[in-house]
Amino acid sequence: MKNNPIGIFDSGLGGLTVLSEVARLLPTEETIYLGDTARVPYGIKSKETVVRYALEDAAFLQSHKVKLIVAACNTASANALDILQKVLNVPVIGVIEPGARAAVKATKTGRIGIIGTSATIDSNAYTSAIVDLAPEAKTFALACPLFVPLVEEGWNDNEIALSIAKKYLVELQEADIDTLVLGCTHYPLLKGIIAKVMGPGVTLIDSAAATATVVSALLEKEGIKNSSGSNASHAFFVTDSPDNFVKVGTRFFGKRLNCASLAELERRS
Amino acid sequence: MKNNPIGIFDSGLGGLTVLSEVARLLPTEETIYLGDTARVPYGIKSKETVVRYALEDAAFLQSHKVKLIVAACNTASANALDILQKVLNVPVIGVIEPGARAAVKATKTGRIGIIGTSATIDSNAYTSAIVDLAPEAKTFALACPLFVPLVEEGWNDNEIALSIAKKYLVELQEADIDTLVLGCTHYPLLKGIIAKVMGPGVTLIDSAAATATVVSALLEKEGIKNSSGSNASHAFFVTDSPDNFVKVGTRFFGKRLNCASLAELERRS
Repeated sequence: MKNNPIGIFDSGLGGLTVLSEVARLLPTEETIYLGDTARVPYGIKSKETVVRYALEDAAFLQSHKVKLIVAACNTASANALDILQKVLNVPVIGVIEPGARAAVKATKTGRIGIIGTSATIDSNAYTSAIVDLAPEAKTFALACPLFVPLVEEGWNDNEIALSIAKKYLVELQEADIDTLVLGCTHYPLLKGIIAKVMGPGVTLIDSAAATATVVSALLEKEGIKNSSGSNASHAFFVTDSPDNFVKVGTRFFGKRLNCASLAELERRS
Repeated sequence: MKNNPIGIFDSGLGGLTVLSEVARLLPTEETIYLGDTARVPYGIKSKETVVRYALEDAAFLQSHKVKLIVAACNTASANALDILQKVLNVPVIGVIEPGARAAVKATKTGRIGIIGTSATIDSNAYTSAIVDLAPEAKTFALACPLFVPLVEEGWNDNEIALSIAKKYLVELQEADIDTLVLGCTHYPLLKGIIAKVMGPGVTLIDSAAATATVVSALLEKEGIKNSSGSNASHAFFVTDSPDNFVKVGTRFFGKRLNCASLAELERRS
């Protein structure tokens, strides 16, 4: 069991930011990444559809004998984590609770903003997680649907990205928050722009690093940490053609992806 | 056969602009519309995936005994029309050829621009169709990936939409075109902005009306036009939750959608 890989899934590329942190913190763990690029994005779809997709993604990872699954997708974590934890026989970690915990730790005024896809924001998952940890906190949640296509277009740092960020974030500026959760794995790539709009008084929380810490702690606790000591390999699967994933994925993973394979998911109804 | 419905499919909402024109021109024809909203968008996905989705969409419509199928999605028309026409036993019409024909008719200088999703532009389908009709024409094709999410966000006519259009279209301004094909069913909703950027010397071509004319001619030719005379009904199916489709669809269809049903597609591998 110790030598089995960690499974990580996302709707597409965004979860590579989480994988990158996991690999940095746990360099001896093998990983299997699944990006559901044939059905990306999840964030504009209904809860029922997101739950079905998350179950299919997890089943694929389980067929590869993973010892733990990370739902490295905010939309899937927000809508499907409870059901994944109920039906799977390996531990499942989402990105919401680690992000919420990091935000509660960072805030001084208790005024926390959350940005994400429509499906993540509509789920109220961050708000619930934050209020569970800090009942006195005041949260301000906002969907920013254009941020994902903006990042995928590679427009992370131009005038148009800045105008879009200004238009969305004006509400949160007025709410006088001191901490802002980047509740989508694409958003760290817009960190520069978001920081410029929100100013130096607002701490930006990126769940990726916080999630890697939770993964490490859980492996420790369950006694399934791989301590073989050698540099581990990372396998990549996608549901659409692997070519584009390999090309664009490098930007998210932070280093070159050598190759990815096509995954065929079993349909659940 | 004459009384059977016309089937129309799209990756999501965009094809409703085509349905709207078909219903206007052929008010006595029953129609069945399928929007594959659980897997939208198609325009960022590979040819193989788009072909598989188009075959699954068409099979669903065939199970409803349609007499003719319209691929009311530029990405599906560009990548899958030939295979749909080969495997189905009813006539299949795409939106590319009607759009190309309308562009060739409209141009005076023979310099024609084409904008669309990445998958449509990469397919070269418009360029081939235009050059087949007018070998002397010069075409300039450009992908505008942010236009679809922009329309879905409802930002059809603000400063940000204008900046994005300016940034994309500068290349086509320099190419000195006199005709521009809106090669995606979402783009007619950005007509105002695109016209502002391109100026009055450029004619914008929207395939929807041209496609409806081709549908009408084909029904006539095959002798399967419904001439019963009464106002026909329109049925709507989607693969994700129908609620959002009904809410947002009105903007594309031009009139209120009363209800839509959930469709379960058979997977082909």
